[in-house]
Amino acid sequence: MAKGILSGISSPADVKGLTPQQLEFLATEIRDFLVEKVSATGGHLGPNLGVVELSIGIHRVFDSPSDPVVFDTSHQSYVHKILTGRWDRFDTLRQKGGLSGYTCLSESEHDWTESSHASAALSVADGLSKAMVRQGKTDNKVVAVVGDGALTGGMCWEALNNIAADAQSRVVIVVNDNGRSYSPTIGGLAENLAELRMQPFYDRVMEQGKSTLNSMGWVGRRTFDVMHAFKEGVKNTVIPTEMFPELGMKYVGPIDGHNLRHVEHALEYARDYDGPIILHVVTEKGRGYGPAEANEADLMHSTGVIDPRTGDPLSKSGPSWTGVFSQAIVEAAQRREDITATTAAMAGPTGLAPFGAQFPDRFFDVGIAEQHAVASAAGMALGGLHPVIALYATFMNRAFDQLLMDAALLKLPITLVLDRAGITGSDGASHNGVWDLSLLGIIPGMRVAAPRDGQQLRELFDEAIEISDGPSAVRFPKGSLPEELPAVDSLSDGVEILGLFEADGEDDGTARKVDVLLVTVGAMAHATLAAAHRLVDDGCNVTVVDPRWVIPVAPSLVALAADHDIVVVIEDGVIHGGIGSLLDESLTAAEIDTPLRRIAVPEKFLDHASRGELLAELGMDADGIYASVGTWVDNLIAEDAEDVT
Amino acid sequence: MAKGILSGISSPADVKGLTPQQLEFLATEIRDFLVEKVSATGGHLGPNLGVVELSIGIHRVFDSPSDPVVFDTSHQSYVHKILTGRWDRFDTLRQKGGLSGYTCLSESEHDWTESSHASAALSVADGLSKAMVRQGKTDNKVVAVVGDGALTGGMCWEALNNIAADAQSRVVIVVNDNGRSYSPTIGGLAENLAELRMQPFYDRVMEQGKSTLNSMGWVGRRTFDVMHAFKEGVKNTVIPTEMFPELGMKYVGPIDGHNLRHVEHALEYARDYDGPIILHVVTEKGRGYGPAEANEADLMHSTGVIDPRTGDPLSKSGPSWTGVFSQAIVEAAQRREDITATTAAMAGPTGLAPFGAQFPDRFFDVGIAEQHAVASAAGMALGGLHPVIALYATFMNRAFDQLLMDAALLKLPITLVLDRAGITGSDGASHNGVWDLSLLGIIPGMRVAAPRDGQQLRELFDEAIEISDGPSAVRFPKGSLPEELPAVDSLSDGVEILGLFEADGEDDGTARKVDVLLVTVGAMAHATLAAAHRLVDDGCNVTVVDPRWVIPVAPSLVALAADHDIVVVIEDGVIHGGIGSLLDESLTAAEIDTPLRRIAVPEKFLDHASRGELLAELGMDADGIYASVGTWVDNLIAEDAEDVT
Repeated sequence: MAKGILSGISSPADVKGLTPQQLEFLATEIRDFLVEKVSATGGHLGPNLGVVELSIGIHRVFDSPSDPVVFDTSHQSYVHKILTGRWDRFDTLRQKGGLSGYTCLSESEHDWTESSHASAALSVADGLSKAMVRQGKTDNKVVAVVGDGALTGGMCWEALNNIAADAQSRVVIVVNDNGRSYSPTIGGLAENLAELRMQPFYDRVMEQGKSTLNSMGWVGRRTFDVMHAFKEGVKNTVIPTEMFPELGMKYVGPIDGHNLRHVEHALEYARDYDGPIILHVVTEKGRGYGPAEANEADLMHSTGVIDPRTGDPLSKSGPSWTGVFSQAIVEAAQRREDITATTAAMAGPTGLAPFGAQFPDRFFDVGIAEQHAVASAAGMALGGLHPVIALYATFMNRAFDQLLMDAALLKLPITLVLDRAGITGSDGASHNGVWDLSLLGIIPGMRVAAPRDGQQLRELFDEAIEISDGPSAVRFPKGSLPEELPAVDSLSDGVEILGLFEADGEDDGTARKVDVLLVTVGAMAHATLAAAHRLVDDGCNVTVVDPRWVIPVAPSLVALAADHDIVVVIEDGVIHGGIGSLLDESLTAAEIDTPLRRIAVPEKFLDHASRGELLAELGMDADGIYASVGTWVDNLIAEDAEDVT
Repeated sequence: MAKGILSGISSPADVKGLTPQQLEFLATEIRDFLVEKVSATGGHLGPNLGVVELSIGIHRVFDSPSDPVVFDTSHQSYVHKILTGRWDRFDTLRQKGGLSGYTCLSESEHDWTESSHASAALSVADGLSKAMVRQGKTDNKVVAVVGDGALTGGMCWEALNNIAADAQSRVVIVVNDNGRSYSPTIGGLAENLAELRMQPFYDRVMEQGKSTLNSMGWVGRRTFDVMHAFKEGVKNTVIPTEMFPELGMKYVGPIDGHNLRHVEHALEYARDYDGPIILHVVTEKGRGYGPAEANEADLMHSTGVIDPRTGDPLSKSGPSWTGVFSQAIVEAAQRREDITATTAAMAGPTGLAPFGAQFPDRFFDVGIAEQHAVASAAGMALGGLHPVIALYATFMNRAFDQLLMDAALLKLPITLVLDRAGITGSDGASHNGVWDLSLLGIIPGMRVAAPRDGQQLRELFDEAIEISDGPSAVRFPKGSLPEELPAVDSLSDGVEILGLFEADGEDDGTARKVDVLLVTVGAMAHATLAAAHRLVDDGCNVTVVDPRWVIPVAPSLVALAADHDIVVVIEDGVIHGGIGSLLDESLTAAEIDTPLRRIAVPEKFLDHASRGELLAELGMDADGIYASVGTWVDNLIAEDAEDVT
C-alpha cells in the first residue's frame, strides 16, 4: 500500500494542488514505492527512478489527457501511471491480467501509445499535433518524452525534420537525457549531448524568438516562493550550443531533471511558447536507489525479482540461450578475423558484451538504429568481412527493407542472431518475436536456422557463419536453455529425426494406423516430442522431425510429407507466412496434397503474461499439441470412412 | 555513337589524363549524349544532367574501384556508367538484357550497390570503410554521393551519427544538393540547406582541425593553372553555418557543382583529409537541357520516351490507375473534413499533387521518410482524423514496423494507397512492388483491397476510408487502366463472380469434368478470365472469383473452395505468404483439403524488363495461367484414376 501523500493521488489534479514541500515528499514516496513494487514483480526500475520529478512536473504543468503525453518506448511510464490513478494496481505489474509494463490504451485515458519499439513517439506526437491544429484545439500541447538513446534512431530525425518545419506545431519535445539509453550511447550525437550536459545547470531559457513566458504568472501561482522564483528568472541565459540547430528548432536546456522547480519552470515556458520546442532535461537513471546507482553497467535498466535492500536477484536462472551465443561468437572470432559484431544499443542483453571487451575494434554499437545496423553490415560484407548482427527478433521488423535490398539483393554474407524470438510474454504485445520467420521467408536466398537446444545453437551458429553467398539468421527464444534433445537419425540435407514411433497392436481395425509427420521448429521440439508419445499410445504412427534449417524448406521434408497421411507444423511464430506455409508452398508446388495443419501463434496481438501461460493458452504446449493433432487425425479417419462408404 | 572526347573514354584512367579544356568539352558531350540516349529509352534524365561535373571530378580525384564510389538511390549514376566503360551500351538502357537504370554489381567492378531505395548509401559506405580499415586499406576512401532529399530519411541520420563518431572513417560524404529531390523538399533540414546555398559560391574549405591539404600538390599537377589555383586557395574561408554541427562532422561547402575546378579542389581536400567529411555540392537538376530546366515541377526527374528537341512525350498513355486515385481522394476530401493525405516526397508520382493544391492544410509531404509517414498518420488517427498515405508499394517495406506497432496495435484507421504494386519491370528488382501482400498479411486486423479496374479502385478506396476500426490498404499496379470488367454476380461478403462456366458435352468420359476455382487478385483478373475460357473449351467447369478485399480471407471463398476439386490463386506478389497462402491457411484451419495451387511471383529478384515481358516469362499471362492450370488438372485426373485402380 502507498503511504502519506501518494495514497491521496488518484489523478493529476491531485498533484497540481500540492505544496513544494509535499512534492518533495511525494517524490521520495514514489521512489520507495517503485523499489518496493518493481523488486517484487520485475520491470524497468532504473529508467523510472530517473523520471520521478519530470513526470510530476509534466502532470502539474500540463492537463492530461487534453494535453496528450506520449512516452517514447514507454517503459519509463511507471511514475505517469502512479500519478494517473493506477498506483493501487502495481502488485499486478506485468502479470497476466495486470498492469502493462508500457502505456496501454485500455488502462487509462492518459495513455496514448502501446508499442515498446523506440524512437516513434515524436512521429506520433507530430500527428496528434496536426490533428489538434486542424480541429482548432490550439490551446493544447502534446508532450513527447524521448530518451537520448532513442534520438539515435532514424525515426526521430524524420520526425524532428517535420516538427521543426511546422510553425503551428503544438509539440513539446522533452529529451530525457540520462547519458545512456540501454547502455552507454555512442555516436556523434552522444558526444554533443555530453558537451551540453557539461554546461552548469541553470534554469535555462533562451531569450530569442517570440517568448510568451510570463514569469509573474509563476510568481502569482506560488506566492510563498516569490523571491526564489525571481532569482531563478534572472539566471535565464542564452546557451552556446544547441541540439539540431540545422533544423532551426527552439532549444531550452540543460535543465536539472531532479530539481522540480527548474523542471516546472522550463515546462511552463514550453507550454506557453508558440511553436515547436525542445527541452533538454538531464536526469540520472536509477536515481536515489543505491543498488541501481552502483550498477554502472546498466543502472538496473530492467530487472527480475530482486531483494529490495541489496538489489540482488532472488531467483537464480540457469544457463541461457543468450549465454551460449555469447560464447560461440567469441570463439568464432578467435578462429576468424573477418567476424565482426554489431548491436543496436543492446550489447548486454544480446550477449555481445564479452565480444566487445575482447575485440573492441571489431565491435560496433550503432545506437538504436536497426536499419543502419543491417545496411552497414551489408557494407562490411561488401568489403570482405562476415558481420554478425545481434538483435531482439521483434526489432528486426525495423530492418526488413535493408535486409532485402542492401543485403539479400547483393547476396551478401551477413548473419543475424535473433534473440527473444517467439513468444516472450511479460513485456507485452510488441516485444514478442513472432514475426521474424514470416518476414525472413520473403527474403530471396535467406537461410534461417532455429536451434532446439544449446548444442544445436552452437552448431547452427557455426554453420551460419560459414555461409558465404547470402544472408543467414539464427533465431532462438528468451530464457533458460532446455535440456539437450539428441536426434535418433539425420537425413542427408541435415533434417534430424527426433522420433520414429510405430504404434503397437495388430491391424485389427481398432488402432488408428494413421502416419503422422510432426515438423517442429526450434524450441517447440520438447513439447512436440511429449505430444508424440501420447499420440503413439493412441495408435498413431508418428515421425517427429526437426529441420534445423527452417528456411528454405529442406527437400527431404517434402519427400517425408508425401509418405505420411498428415503433416503438422509446430512453430512459435505467427501462422501467416510461417514455416507451415513455407512447407505448404513447397508441397503444392510439387503437387503433393498431403493434408497439412499448423500449430502456431494466431494473427492477433497477445496481452502480456508469462511465456508458459501464453503457450498453454494458445494450445502450443504438449497438451495443446496432443489435443489438436488428435482431433485432426480423428477427423481425417472419419472423412476417409465417409469416402469409402 | 559517342563523338569526340567521349569516344575515347573506356575507363576513369582516360578521364584523368584530360586537359581542363578537354574536360569542358567532355561535359558538354556527356550532356548531349544523355539527352539523345535517355530521350530514346526513357530514364532519369534530370538528375544525371545535374551531376556531370561532379561525376567527372570524382573519377579524376579518386581511384575507383579501389576507392569505392557509392551512389544513394543510384538513378544518378548514368554519368558514372559513361565514364566507367559503358557508354556504348546506352541504347539498351532499362531494356531487357540491357544496362540497368541503377548501379549493378554484375555490370561493372565500379558499381557497389543495386537497390533503388533512398538514404542507404551512407550506411553502406560506413560498413565499407570499417572493412577497409580492418584490412589495413587506409590509403583508400569511400565516396558516398547522396541527394539533399535523401538526407530527410532516417537511415542517413543513423549513418551520420556513426560515421561522425568514427575517427578512422574513410568516408567522404558528397551531398548533391539540387534543392529538391523528387519534388521540392520540405522540413527544417531543407530550410537550413537553402540558407547554406544562399552563401556566395567559393571554393570553401574550412581551415580547422588537422588539414592535410597541400595546395602546392594541386599546383604541381596542373602547372598551366598555377595562378588560378593560387587565387582559389586564398578564397578558403570559414563559413558561418554547417550541416549537422551536433555530430561534430567536418564540413566543406557550399561548392559550385558545375565548376569543375572547384569540385575537384574540394574533392582533393576531402580525399586528403584524415577523417570523415561532408562536401556540400550545389547542382542544378536538368542543367543544360532547356526542356528540363523549364519543367519546374520536377526538372524531368524521370521521363518516358521523348522528343529530344522539345522534351515532349512521344507516346501518349491512357488514363492511369494513379489518375483514378488522384481524383477519388479529392472527392473524398470534399465530402469529409477528416481526410488528410501524406506523401513521402512523391506528391506528383502518387497523384497527390491536386489534393495538395486544393487542401494545402490537410496535405503533408514528410520527405523520404516512410517510417514517419506511417507513424505520424497513426498520430493523426489517434487525434480523430482519417489519414491516407500514398506510397509506391515497394517503399512500404520501410514502414512495416510502424504499420504493425504504431497503427495496427492501436486499431487506428489509416489508409495506405500502394501504387506501383506488383511487377513494375523496367526500374529493376528493387522497384517491384511484390512484397506488400506478404507483409500486410502479417498485420493483425489489416484490411487490403486489390481493385481489378478503375471502377473497382474508386469503389474500394471509398470503402477503405469508411473503415474506422483499423488500418486498410488499397494496392494497384503501375501503368494504364485496363478495360472495366463487370461482375456477373456477387456474394454476401463482397466477393464477386467474374465467370461461372460449365463445360459443354455429355458425361461420356471424354470431358475432364473437373470443377476449377480460379481466385484472381487485382489486375490479374483479365488474364485469368482469358485463361478460364480456354480451360472451359478443354472440358473444365470453371468459376472465376475476384475477392476485391483480399486480406482477410472472405468466408465465402472458403465455402467455394470446399465445393471445387481444385483452387488456383493468381496474384502478382511473391508466392511466400501471399493471398494463396492466406487462403490455404484458412482452408486447412477449416480442415478443407481441396488441392490448392499458386500462380505468383517466385522467390527471386527479377532483372529489369517490361512488366509484360516479365509476366509472360513467369507464366503469369493468359497463356501461362492456362498452361499451368491445365497441367495441374491433368495431373489431378491422373492421380484420381490411379487411386481408383
